[in-house]
Amino acid sequence: MANPIRVAVTGAAGQIAYSILFRVASGQVFGQDRPVHLKMLEITPAMKALQGVAMELSDCAFPLLTKMDLTDSAEEAFDGINWVFMVGAKPRGPGMERADLILGNGPIFVGQGRALNRGASDVRAMVVGNPCNTNCLIAMSNSDIPKDRFSAMMRLDQNRSQSLLADKSGQPVSAVTNMAVWGNHSNNQYPDFENAKIGGKPAPQVINDQSWLQETFVKTVQNRGAEVIKARGASSAASAANAALDHVKSLIQPTPAGDWNSVAVCSDGQYGVDKGLIFGYPIQTKADGSYGVVEGLPMSPWAKAKFDAVHEELRKEREVVKHLLK
Amino acid sequence: MANPIRVAVTGAAGQIAYSILFRVASGQVFGQDRPVHLKMLEITPAMKALQGVAMELSDCAFPLLTKMDLTDSAEEAFDGINWVFMVGAKPRGPGMERADLILGNGPIFVGQGRALNRGASDVRAMVVGNPCNTNCLIAMSNSDIPKDRFSAMMRLDQNRSQSLLADKSGQPVSAVTNMAVWGNHSNNQYPDFENAKIGGKPAPQVINDQSWLQETFVKTVQNRGAEVIKARGASSAASAANAALDHVKSLIQPTPAGDWNSVAVCSDGQYGVDKGLIFGYPIQTKADGSYGVVEGLPMSPWAKAKFDAVHEELRKEREVVKHLLK
Repeated sequence: MANPIRVAVTGAAGQIAYSILFRVASGQVFGQDRPVHLKMLEITPAMKALQGVAMELSDCAFPLLTKMDLTDSAEEAFDGINWVFMVGAKPRGPGMERADLILGNGPIFVGQGRALNRGASDVRAMVVGNPCNTNCLIAMSNSDIPKDRFSAMMRLDQNRSQSLLADKSGQPVSAVTNMAVWGNHSNNQYPDFENAKIGGKPAPQVINDQSWLQETFVKTVQNRGAEVIKARGASSAASAANAALDHVKSLIQPTPAGDWNSVAVCSDGQYGVDKGLIFGYPIQTKADGSYGVVEGLPMSPWAKAKFDAVHEELRKEREVVKHLLK
Repeated sequence: MANPIRVAVTGAAGQIAYSILFRVASGQVFGQDRPVHLKMLEITPAMKALQGVAMELSDCAFPLLTKMDLTDSAEEAFDGINWVFMVGAKPRGPGMERADLILGNGPIFVGQGRALNRGASDVRAMVVGNPCNTNCLIAMSNSDIPKDRFSAMMRLDQNRSQSLLADKSGQPVSAVTNMAVWGNHSNNQYPDFENAKIGGKPAPQVINDQSWLQETFVKTVQNRGAEVIKARGASSAASAANAALDHVKSLIQPTPAGDWNSVAVCSDGQYGVDKGLIFGYPIQTKADGSYGVVEGLPMSPWAKAKFDAVHEELRKEREVVKHLLK
């Protein structure tokens, strides 16, 4: 068998991690022939609960799970890792503004960004903890590892978009392709139905209802998280975890020809975005494991206005945390 | 693609189901080429939370998940199903005796047993909800479908046993085979280290410490659930769900030659057990999909006393619910 892949998960006793850890240990991300060494990070008060999670992981007798480390030190957790799921973040409390959330979480990602320097030479980091784009920016800025190793999660938004378009068109979800979600994982994100395809045809040809697409579809995707909380009485956990697994798979497996996935990565100026922002783009992964932004996609003036608004939002978030950036 | 397999899950808004549903929809049980139609049953007050779970399942854009039905009627949930995970059961409250738990849950399984007559011609039922052996007995007794279609879950106990023996011996968990857990999923279960193997050798030869095996090992397995609750602050969910998936896979996939898995099935008198009890046995599944109890395993007098005690416990549970049996 291959050497174990070392995978860190932060916020490892939390609800999203609870759905990530067991699926990673079962081989659903890195393959049925790749052993996994899990390195689980939590804050000190949660170490006992984390011990319970580790007991349950042991109790699964996963053949691929060779080792578990439990720690409250990011340096220990990230030592020698190949991948990290950065899930842990302070939740948004009642009455908190987004800027408060950003400031509350920023320092965590300064320290974790530095700790990433302890990773293996191929270390890669993906951020789930919100505000994930700007948290990712902070971690990247405080780390010495290459910028293309960082990403933040737009995949839950992509999956939600695909599911909604499938439902509306009466087609299977696998028929919905080329789903880009631009910009920020926030309620200003822009899920791009103009460039999406359903059964190989442009989505607006299949769903010939511009007002549904521009209003209902976009708002439903943007506000889906709040709707899940209302129904379930708890925030999305298993679906967020599933998106995190899809996200990583889409960065380590070649993208099917002609399709793309939505991943927030460090902008190199594509589509006029400020260089260095962590921006949700359509991404293709090549057979050699490298990835690139799909360029040249057209946008209507209506779409461009949405795009510009979310770009502006990310600039403002960067401004809020500029004292944390190197 | 093949026709969807119709899979019902009861207690579908609960914590164990939350870990089962997403893994089933991702193809981890019935295969990557088998679409899944989920039929989710809950009690009426939990229907809104169940709606939230269904939203999250949609939000995963699982290509194999073709349809979801949400209902508070067992007749509707079980209509045309091929498999059911019977997870839902009343939890044990503070100060409740096991007999109270059994009586509280019994009527649920009378109704669900009858509703199973609505299943497909190949319908199979597995019970997770505790007390799972006796709940399974009640469902089987109130249903007209063949007795060999019913099983109750010993797999969490098997997995825990394998993990403990691996840990103690310093061997990988995949080296631990032939792990039978006899009798009842209760703290009188008997995890049979005498017939277990580690790296192909009898476990007591590899772990040459009879008092650890007879005392520490057996008690640790029996009381593991309570220890997880103490650490995690919540009962085992992901590991129970994982065991449920392993359980079903072990009944639909051939067992590796020479090995077995622990499944509670309707006794035909093997090892002197009362006919008709749902008893944890070592089971082998053949290539044609049928299964059989592994017979003729030796037991020391010490082991036989454990076996007899758990047999007696199941007889008593049957006595408690005899008014619910047909």
